[in-house]
Amino acid sequence: MKAKYNFNINFIIYQLGLILIAEAFFMIFPIIVGLYYKEAVVDKVVLSMEITLVIGLILFFTTKSKTVKDYGKRESFLLVSLAWILMSFFGAIPFILSNKIPNVIDAYFESMSGFTTTGSSILTDIEAMPKCLLFWRSETHWIGGLGIVVLFVALFPFLKTKRIYLFNAEASVVVEQKTMPKIIDLARNLWIFYMIITAIETALLMFGGMNLYESLCHTFGTVGTGGFSTRNASIGAFSPYIQYVITIFMILAGVNFALYIQLLKRKFSNVYKNDELRAYLSIILLSGAVITAVLLIKGTYSHFEEAFRAAYFQVASIITATGYATADYMKWPPAAIIIIVLLMFIGGSAGSTSGGIKVIRHVIFFKTFGRFLKKQVHQELIAPIYYNRRRVDEEVIQGVLLFIITYVGIVFIATVVLIYMGVDIESAFGSTLTTIGGIGPGLGITGPAGNFSQLPYMAKFVLIFLMLIGRLEIFTFFVIFTKSFRKG
Amino acid sequence: MKAKYNFNINFIIYQLGLILIAEAFFMIFPIIVGLYYKEAVVDKVVLSMEITLVIGLILFFTTKSKTVKDYGKRESFLLVSLAWILMSFFGAIPFILSNKIPNVIDAYFESMSGFTTTGSSILTDIEAMPKCLLFWRSETHWIGGLGIVVLFVALFPFLKTKRIYLFNAEASVVVEQKTMPKIIDLARNLWIFYMIITAIETALLMFGGMNLYESLCHTFGTVGTGGFSTRNASIGAFSPYIQYVITIFMILAGVNFALYIQLLKRKFSNVYKNDELRAYLSIILLSGAVITAVLLIKGTYSHFEEAFRAAYFQVASIITATGYATADYMKWPPAAIIIIVLLMFIGGSAGSTSGGIKVIRHVIFFKTFGRFLKKQVHQELIAPIYYNRRRVDEEVIQGVLLFIITYVGIVFIATVVLIYMGVDIESAFGSTLTTIGGIGPGLGITGPAGNFSQLPYMAKFVLIFLMLIGRLEIFTFFVIFTKSFRKG
Repeated sequence: MKAKYNFNINFIIYQLGLILIAEAFFMIFPIIVGLYYKEAVVDKVVLSMEITLVIGLILFFTTKSKTVKDYGKRESFLLVSLAWILMSFFGAIPFILSNKIPNVIDAYFESMSGFTTTGSSILTDIEAMPKCLLFWRSETHWIGGLGIVVLFVALFPFLKTKRIYLFNAEASVVVEQKTMPKIIDLARNLWIFYMIITAIETALLMFGGMNLYESLCHTFGTVGTGGFSTRNASIGAFSPYIQYVITIFMILAGVNFALYIQLLKRKFSNVYKNDELRAYLSIILLSGAVITAVLLIKGTYSHFEEAFRAAYFQVASIITATGYATADYMKWPPAAIIIIVLLMFIGGSAGSTSGGIKVIRHVIFFKTFGRFLKKQVHQELIAPIYYNRRRVDEEVIQGVLLFIITYVGIVFIATVVLIYMGVDIESAFGSTLTTIGGIGPGLGITGPAGNFSQLPYMAKFVLIFLMLIGRLEIFTFFVIFTKSFRKG
Repeated sequence: MKAKYNFNINFIIYQLGLILIAEAFFMIFPIIVGLYYKEAVVDKVVLSMEITLVIGLILFFTTKSKTVKDYGKRESFLLVSLAWILMSFFGAIPFILSNKIPNVIDAYFESMSGFTTTGSSILTDIEAMPKCLLFWRSETHWIGGLGIVVLFVALFPFLKTKRIYLFNAEASVVVEQKTMPKIIDLARNLWIFYMIITAIETALLMFGGMNLYESLCHTFGTVGTGGFSTRNASIGAFSPYIQYVITIFMILAGVNFALYIQLLKRKFSNVYKNDELRAYLSIILLSGAVITAVLLIKGTYSHFEEAFRAAYFQVASIITATGYATADYMKWPPAAIIIIVLLMFIGGSAGSTSGGIKVIRHVIFFKTFGRFLKKQVHQELIAPIYYNRRRVDEEVIQGVLLFIITYVGIVFIATVVLIYMGVDIESAFGSTLTTIGGIGPGLGITGPAGNFSQLPYMAKFVLIFLMLIGRLEIFTFFVIFTKSFRKG
């Protein structure tokens, strides 16, 4: 007698096994770096890879014979959540075994910050770290950038028609519901484009005099909108040319990647018509201009080019949730800091590697708010909301509004919790906002010139949780705890 | 040839005239107080009354002959907004002419704080003020409590069938749309009940040894959920008996007044079934209990009764947005302060004199959030949201979500603006939150032991604006600036 399908735990174990095997594969690259630079700790990275591989193989082979194709939305939600938790856990092992970040919570913080492309760090002296560990740290940005599951959808055909569940559980497809063949195409094209843009930026950075190792590390941090650097001064340690290249690629990484594919297919009007792209670029142009003016007027910089470069670098870094820095915005005039904080709330585009609330949700909120006010005067008004000249479903609008409220509510509650743990208000608010948004630097002691090392461990734990739910766009994680989830 | 109806400015001028005449009438009471206590400044209150009356009569008589019955939603929105702005302006005249609050912005702040039942004060020494001015200050709470327009709806039959527009523009009827005869009945019954509860509390306070003058002042501040006191120590200056009476009446004033009318009509099940009432009372019970425990454990108080009384007084004062104090919660342990701040975000019930986001909106948010999560697993699910066993329209839900986002967004932006003006973070956040919610005391320098006198004038101006839009429940004010409003 075949048991009635209820919840396919085998599917989840099997997939987690595959993910760990993939993670072990990715650890080969820091090993190559370690061997090249003849670093002693490379042994520990090899050991970490072995541990990850063995556990991955165990999970994979204990379930291989079982049916692994019977899965639904519930399995997808749980798998995606567990995948991020587990990858970050195994990603922390090199830091722990090498004794360079001996504390488990600190190591987990760094690893979660890497995979979720947050870029917040507990390291006080980055340059004292072995290159192989820094390479791994940056590589986690690249792996996490597009999403682990998006990679799976692209690679494994056996996931069949239900892979859309996985895709939706991880990616931020707010408006457009893709049909099945399109999803596979999209995921593959996304990864191909991701590799192309990685190659281009690496080449451009090397052209500017960076070596291959640092070029790769910073490219990973840029295209994944992560923010980990190999230098204590972040990108401030490099030439203006490098800073401009990274500014441009941060902005590019904050755009919906699907638009690049439209562009390559020569569907220019789809790109031009895109409401989110226009709003995103307008916000960058405007805030950069205002900050440039403020920095010059208040005398923070005396040369226009310096102010312009610092303003646009920081704006691009914050709105795309990358988190690189060339200046300490905490030392800027208040008006400039205010814009930076507002940008932290905005975020990049849906379908990009960026974080935050995302521009599309703000666009939909403002359109809905405007319609609501109009309805106060014209009660009988029936006016659908349009986005990219398509009608937006009222349920999608409700999801957007709920997302914004939940996001802000979590920021508020987490800030309060951190204050309770003894963190000052400014640092508590900044840390919360920067981790849930996947940005990197916060405010106060966690600002661009500081780091997260001084926070109490309980606070770090809260922030690890925020990075996770921020990357999973909140709902995926909460669904797991509903009655509907348990009862199926 | 009769001109096509476009916008009836005469209606607005006529009604504003009536409102000023009514305001002049209300100034008779502080004059009586001033005469009784033989205060010299009573002359200035008489002069203020004369000015208000004359300008009211001018507005009234210059428009009387014109048609004043032709009005719609747009006129209602503008009238309600202007009524609050104008009443507060004329309400400030006694403070200015008496030279007791010589600065116009300070006087306007105090008057707007009174009418909007906020209770935030710029006074540093309340007891140094003449009694007639303190009585007027408290009376503005009573006038503003139920809403000026609700009074009009109850009194003037010529407003005819369109009075529902006025009612909706001012009152917070979130879910139930009343039919016309019910609206008139409701408004009249509300005022009758308001006077009954005022009489009962005054009697109970006098029974506790307060004189008539102070009993009336504090009753106005309680039933209107205002918070102005006649003492520097607020209700801390009075006996435990007085404190308990005021605690109970604050809680009563935070309940939907329509429920009392149901109760008097012996429709008990309507009261028992009320979702908002249950949530409201549960929140009070729970937060009071937690704070009592925290205060005892941390040793803020050594006696249970003292901790119990201080906890429930402050909880009732903050959730109902009254703002009276018997203790300085800024000196409480962090866990207790956190609960106070959360209560500031919650607010009382719809249809009460309280402020804030209001419990009903939180209830609807959580129900909608739960349904949304459920839908992630069961896409095809069709599940209406029920409130008080009635189906809530999806448009109403959207309004609630938009309200919460706009409210929190305004708090955030105003906080940032105040910080920019040089106010510290804690005080900026507390001041913003307390004024838009109509509460009274904030955090930091504007906490229960402080006041708003030290803030820069520009900051006071921002806070006056927040009190206004908070009392008008935000949308009423914003509607005026839409294209639909201008074009009709």
